[in-house]
Amino acid sequence: MTMDYRQSGVDIDAGNETVRRIKSLARGTFTPGVLSEIGSFGGLFKLDRDRYREPVLVSSADGVGTKLKVAFMMGRHDTVGADLVNHCVNDILVQGAEPLFFLDYLATGRLLPAVAEQVVTGVARACRENGCALIGGETAEMPGFYADGEYDIAGFIVGVVDRPNLIDGRTIVPGDVLVGLRSSGLHTNGYSLARRVFFDVAGWKPDTMVAELGTTLGDALLATHRSYLPVVRPLFARGAGTIKGLAHITGGGITENLPRILPAGCAAEIDRAAWSVPPLFRLLQQHGGIATDEMFRAFNMGIGLIATCAARDADRLVTDLAAAGEAAVRLGRIVAGDRAVAYVNTP
Amino acid sequence: MTMDYRQSGVDIDAGNETVRRIKSLARGTFTPGVLSEIGSFGGLFKLDRDRYREPVLVSSADGVGTKLKVAFMMGRHDTVGADLVNHCVNDILVQGAEPLFFLDYLATGRLLPAVAEQVVTGVARACRENGCALIGGETAEMPGFYADGEYDIAGFIVGVVDRPNLIDGRTIVPGDVLVGLRSSGLHTNGYSLARRVFFDVAGWKPDTMVAELGTTLGDALLATHRSYLPVVRPLFARGAGTIKGLAHITGGGITENLPRILPAGCAAEIDRAAWSVPPLFRLLQQHGGIATDEMFRAFNMGIGLIATCAARDADRLVTDLAAAGEAAVRLGRIVAGDRAVAYVNTP
Repeated sequence: MTMDYRQSGVDIDAGNETVRRIKSLARGTFTPGVLSEIGSFGGLFKLDRDRYREPVLVSSADGVGTKLKVAFMMGRHDTVGADLVNHCVNDILVQGAEPLFFLDYLATGRLLPAVAEQVVTGVARACRENGCALIGGETAEMPGFYADGEYDIAGFIVGVVDRPNLIDGRTIVPGDVLVGLRSSGLHTNGYSLARRVFFDVAGWKPDTMVAELGTTLGDALLATHRSYLPVVRPLFARGAGTIKGLAHITGGGITENLPRILPAGCAAEIDRAAWSVPPLFRLLQQHGGIATDEMFRAFNMGIGLIATCAARDADRLVTDLAAAGEAAVRLGRIVAGDRAVAYVNTP
Repeated sequence: MTMDYRQSGVDIDAGNETVRRIKSLARGTFTPGVLSEIGSFGGLFKLDRDRYREPVLVSSADGVGTKLKVAFMMGRHDTVGADLVNHCVNDILVQGAEPLFFLDYLATGRLLPAVAEQVVTGVARACRENGCALIGGETAEMPGFYADGEYDIAGFIVGVVDRPNLIDGRTIVPGDVLVGLRSSGLHTNGYSLARRVFFDVAGWKPDTMVAELGTTLGDALLATHRSYLPVVRPLFARGAGTIKGLAHITGGGITENLPRILPAGCAAEIDRAAWSVPPLFRLLQQHGGIATDEMFRAFNMGIGLIATCAARDADRLVTDLAAAGEAAVRLGRIVAGDRAVAYVNTP
């Protein structure tokens, strides 16, 4: 009886081969702050001390949830990494931060270097697009943890904002206006319910062409969680205070997320007639027989980011966003209340 | 036919309950730099700009691998979080960094707030011990991803070092001495093979009392990955340069990890007679019939951290460590070679 590590299901060579493939992908994301190579124990990022009076590091950890199951069904592994990065970028953007660096965690039952490379290709592409350096990560082979061909991923981001420019919703008052930015799909949220409805109840397949969607169900479900950094960052240049609060609609719908930035004494009133809910959400509601309140609790319903500003700044905000190619929507307003969301014009 | 999110296996209420329980645990770890509450989109940490001339952020992402399976077998969920934190702390310590903050990712098939709370209890305890603030994280309920009662965790740490104090092995030259610090067990590495050998081949159970170990197999396997911060940080105060390189023996053994800090032209020569390999590793080798080279490739063999210093500094380093209660071992020396490890006095 002789054993080695490989017989227990862990292949150190596959791990080393994966690191080799990932290295060059990561190197393509490096920004001037990066001091380390992939493979060192920690990732090194030199903070430009002189750019900030009071540098505040803003960080977030996220996953992409069971959207991964759609990727597995379609055998397409090069988009979920972008979901992960953009999700994280948005989570720190809402506090006014620009991204500095990113690390990923990839765990699988049996490590396939080619699949890991595809996943990291998506991570690296989105990192480049967001000016965020991929400086480290962990690839874990965990026999017996994940079904064959499956994996989980998590992402960690660190960004920075100068303290006077921090956005935290503190100055929000009744009378302020809520402006919504469109989502690009379900983003990374609600996939357990959506898969149940579309695959189990409606009986559709990933390659089912859905006329209302203008594409296949699989492509619609796998649409990448967009990054709001390109359209929102230019607004910060206008100076502190114009945007009072930003909510990323993720890990739940507007009902769950908007209260996270509301100060005591404030509530949100959203006009459901202000925008047209995209077909994907309407199909989901219809086939699942899901109550409208539950839809707004669980899904973004077509709005992925909500900005709050003073009423006098609202027109300018919408115009500026339009100039950046963003058809933003006046969703409603802040009213007196206890950190909740109320909907008007409910159909 | 009506559905809601809960029927798809995702319980938003369980998620909210978990966040509620975690909040107070996290708050107990807060250090003066923390500006945010748990539950905001990003964690906020104010960097003390004036403490550093050239602040370099050092970050790492890690998991604990299949050590989790031992925790599941024993129904003990309050130690793996400490493994995760200490592992991360060590990974940035080896570059000279002290930890600032930590975020965790916890993914499970069905979220049990009481189990999540136990896991985060371990995370929070180790964060406090390392002076590291737990400022965020993600708890993901992913139906169909994990077996009942199972979960995966990943951790993400950010620390800081002033650039002149960065430790990167660059100054290592032939003639330097290698000093090893003891591990507290398998740390977070090699558990797939160890479980196979002890549970499947030897037929032992977690509660099997093993005379050579002086405890049960389960307790020995679940021994917490120690943090080297308390004994190593005081050495940094001596000034840059004394410790030329530090290798954390993790994700593989000495053979895999020590080369990561060796510059071109250097190799390591380790004297296997320099220390006594702890009984847990000897039992593992014996019951698994594992070759000695494979043991040193896959396991830490009782040495969890290796420091490199000039020969003239070695006595002082060992004495200083002894004064801190650490029985460090002269393991060997740096020789001319190509970034590999050779062993002498092989039995």
